[in-house]
Amino acid sequence: MCRWLAYVGAPVEPREFLYDPERSLIEQSRSHAPGMDVPNGDGTGLGWYGRRLVPTLFRSTTPAWANETLKELASEVESGMFLAHVRAGTGTPVQTTNCHPFRFGRWLFVHNGYVADYMKLRRTLLLAVDPDLFPNVLGTTDSELLFYLALTFGLEDDPIGALERMAGFVEEVAAEAGVTEALQMTVGLTDGDRIYAARYASGPVVNTLFVSEDVQSLQLLYPQSERLARYSEGARLVVSEPLVALPGAWREVPASTAMVVDGSSVRERRFVPERPG
Amino acid sequence: MCRWLAYVGAPVEPREFLYDPERSLIEQSRSHAPGMDVPNGDGTGLGWYGRRLVPTLFRSTTPAWANETLKELASEVESGMFLAHVRAGTGTPVQTTNCHPFRFGRWLFVHNGYVADYMKLRRTLLLAVDPDLFPNVLGTTDSELLFYLALTFGLEDDPIGALERMAGFVEEVAAEAGVTEALQMTVGLTDGDRIYAARYASGPVVNTLFVSEDVQSLQLLYPQSERLARYSEGARLVVSEPLVALPGAWREVPASTAMVVDGSSVRERRFVPERPG
Amino acid sequence: MCRWLAYVGAPVEPREFLYDPERSLIEQSRSHAPGMDVPNGDGTGLGWYGRRLVPTLFRSTTPAWANETLKELASEVESGMFLAHVRAGTGTPVQTTNCHPFRFGRWLFVHNGYVADYMKLRRTLLLAVDPDLFPNVLGTTDSELLFYLALTFGLEDDPIGALERMAGFVEEVAAEAGVTEALQMTVGLTDGDRIYAARYASGPVVNTLFVSEDVQSLQLLYPQSERLARYSEGARLVVSEPLVALPGAWREVPASTAMVVDGSSVRERRFVPERPG
Amino acid sequence: MCRWLAYVGAPVEPREFLYDPERSLIEQSRSHAPGMDVPNGDGTGLGWYGRRLVPTLFRSTTPAWANETLKELASEVESGMFLAHVRAGTGTPVQTTNCHPFRFGRWLFVHNGYVADYMKLRRTLLLAVDPDLFPNVLGTTDSELLFYLALTFGLEDDPIGALERMAGFVEEVAAEAGVTEALQMTVGLTDGDRIYAARYASGPVVNTLFVSEDVQSLQLLYPQSERLARYSEGARLVVSEPLVALPGAWREVPASTAMVVDGSSVRERRFVPERPG
Repeated sequence: MCRWLAYVGAPVEPREFLYDPERSLIEQSRSHAPGMDVPNGDGTGLGWYGRRLVPTLFRSTTPAWANETLKELASEVESGMFLAHVRAGTGTPVQTTNCHPFRFGRWLFVHNGYVADYMKLRRTLLLAVDPDLFPNVLGTTDSELLFYLALTFGLEDDPIGALERMAGFVEEVAAEAGVTEALQMTVGLTDGDRIYAARYASGPVVNTLFVSEDVQSLQLLYPQSERLARYSEGARLVVSEPLVALPGAWREVPASTAMVVDGSSVRERRFVPERPG
Repeated sequence: MCRWLAYVGAPVEPREFLYDPERSLIEQSRSHAPGMDVPNGDGTGLGWYGRRLVPTLFRSTTPAWANETLKELASEVESGMFLAHVRAGTGTPVQTTNCHPFRFGRWLFVHNGYVADYMKLRRTLLLAVDPDLFPNVLGTTDSELLFYLALTFGLEDDPIGALERMAGFVEEVAAEAGVTEALQMTVGLTDGDRIYAARYASGPVVNTLFVSEDVQSLQLLYPQSERLARYSEGARLVVSEPLVALPGAWREVPASTAMVVDGSSVRERRFVPERPG
Repeated sequence: MCRWLAYVGAPVEPREFLYDPERSLIEQSRSHAPGMDVPNGDGTGLGWYGRRLVPTLFRSTTPAWANETLKELASEVESGMFLAHVRAGTGTPVQTTNCHPFRFGRWLFVHNGYVADYMKLRRTLLLAVDPDLFPNVLGTTDSELLFYLALTFGLEDDPIGALERMAGFVEEVAAEAGVTEALQMTVGLTDGDRIYAARYASGPVVNTLFVSEDVQSLQLLYPQSERLARYSEGARLVVSEPLVALPGAWREVPASTAMVVDGSSVRERRFVPERPG
Repeated sequence: MCRWLAYVGAPVEPREFLYDPERSLIEQSRSHAPGMDVPNGDGTGLGWYGRRLVPTLFRSTTPAWANETLKELASEVESGMFLAHVRAGTGTPVQTTNCHPFRFGRWLFVHNGYVADYMKLRRTLLLAVDPDLFPNVLGTTDSELLFYLALTFGLEDDPIGALERMAGFVEEVAAEAGVTEALQMTVGLTDGDRIYAARYASGPVVNTLFVSEDVQSLQLLYPQSERLARYSEGARLVVSEPLVALPGAWREVPASTAMVVDGSSVRERRFVPERPG
């Protein structure tokens, strides 16, 4: 089970969420916790929107807890939107091209979960990727393939709809191959303006997803918090696991839900896989 | 341009060819030579037949000249058949899964060359791999794909024939996509008993391939050589470049030639690409 | 807290202990267990005695659970004496030169533990290394330094005595610098003939050490075990943690104990740090 | 022989010098050139002054030509002062802690050259490092040690003087050990405000060093150059090798010379090694 986080708000140093909190993402990569049977030690990545329209990407197979470059960048970068990920591989090789985030144009994508019986389904899924997009598939993970399937199904114009068509397609291919409970996923997606996220699984067990409450309410709740005092109105985090045990700070996103988060709002709707037709 | 060597004969330490000669494979990975515009610093590999029927595989992205594990293994291993490779990438990522040799069952494969316009042709070539073999394609290079295409076209039963059908297929796919002079290759292939090799290119420039002369003739030619005195009757090397400047020691294999080398003979025939039909 | 194992007996594949048991060393590198707060994901190593008097060394920063080369070697190698290690760093960089085992001549050394306040003591300890040995110190860990201090204090002639002098010296240097409870260690040491091991800490908490019972007794206890049936008389494992939960199979070595294990006997005596004088 | 460059001027993307010119630093890492017998493939690094007083450091053992993170950062970073380096090791391990630049507080340091017979002299040189600085020595190269010796001899207050005392000390230690022609170096040093550099060798062969001519003169010389038109008055490069073959663009710094370069001037004086006394 991987871990990831997405931030939108006034520019901050990623360090504030990757390193500083008690259950920071780096801490989550290494230290055991209930429900975490193996470490997230199979690579890490940070993608951020900086001086340019396209995001900048850092990915590495060195585990997050020992990654000197990640530590440097997390303090030097200041960004109003970034995605970070720590990986626990589910069978595909530990190599940089299999590390998240994945990038296409202005888009970044992270995933926590898996495609069941992936090696059995991989060929069919890979063939469904738009031939024009195909040369961009550089790694071999299920996660990257889900991203390029969603791009094939219109992600750039209709992000949530494309994720639904991707999920529907994967389930269809799996069913034809006799694979049940095919998809397990929380996904995070950004274009520099908004965070798109979804929590979904084909079966009854669904990886968790949380969104932070609005900063103003939190500041009322915790008037003494120096950390909270610094955050801008509209700042939001979407995370696979809470970073601090602060009652009232996090809201669990229900299963089968999609979200769109920007600096002023959090909108949710049901996430319903759809046959791409 | 990569470099590789294959050895068959009485068991020796790979060190004797990888490290000791003046133009050893390791030396070739690093030091400038005519016709070598870039170093072979994008990974290395050694595959050998040891205690088991299946060969053992070591692959690494650390350049050969600085690779401590390669150095250790080259002295500890003693083997009667091995393949070694130093890589100069031609566009695909530097990662272990892209390092040679590639292995399937008892087979090992190395390649020096490229498929022209590979990113344009890759999808079509990948789709032609037998779906049962497909899950074994772990990397993203043209070289690995050539191996799995040859396996698809019957390599295990008819190695040279399968290489010819692979070459014919690649040229056909390339021609349909408007790509000319599609294939540049010297390939080395072993099954634990024999070395199969081929030298071929679609265009007029063809990477070099050499085979060592028989040991008895060499010993007559160089009666004082301690090194040569040690080698067994029937020992042979197939190499992309000579390892020593010993007149009479190496014979250049002509372009469009296939070879089968074992402990008692070197047989050659023309290599003619064939449409797999 | 690192994990390690040492084997002496009739030649076996390291795989039998590194991969096959329910709590194999590889499993211990990754999966959560009581008392293991972080994974052993900061590198791994295997040293074995093969064809040559000097042992062969494989070390890598790729975590053991994802290390393809370790997996290959653990099945191809067959050796009557080997040492394996999985590392959880305690502050020094994750780099190959900091991975265990460390090697000097015929000797291999592994360590689980630390020198308290190491960065404060390092300079003084490093200066105490015999100037002739100094160029062999290639990494920066406390573990490698303990090895070279023991070599300085006569390890090659009197292994256990030299470990005691090393421990006494480290405690003395620490005391002068105001550092208490300076040393925490289980160490494993081999010369190709015997395993030397010690369990010691300056303070009350002492990392664990276990030795396997003699094979004949185990075979009587578990007459149905196919695995046990294969092991030769005299085969022994020394491990930081039991590999299987087999009642009667492991004996915990008491704190402040040194051991010498070979194919016919396990001898123990008290381990008493000594000022090198 | 390593290669490095230092830039001071109005903020630019490092890409402009690391990737874009015909003989860019990345090109220099890989492609053979007269006087370059081996590639600079043993690691790379980029240090820059960004949002903070302390510089940010990226170092990696992945060769520069294949380093995806370096490529990303070289386009995303925009900085008015940076140092970049490509390494050809001279005996010490290929590991991140041996990659340049080295950093201490606000200072960055790069080196091209060597200490002759380093393994013989290393212990004595290391002991001379100020004990308070000693814990910062994380790698094992001669280059890092030269930096900490210069820091020991007052680099923060008197950069050039400290480099001279360092050189004098190294030569003295070498002479006592019977090592002649001890030091070969071009060094680059920055504090965020100025580039300090020196070209010196104990013997007659001295690695090269070049400084760019002032931008205004160059713009007069090449009125059509778009690239030159973009550079601010006062921008300067100090490099181990020219990046473009532009007549009149580079001036070779004489041997035994020290330089101080900032946005308005280039000052030079003789570099004379001095016994630290």
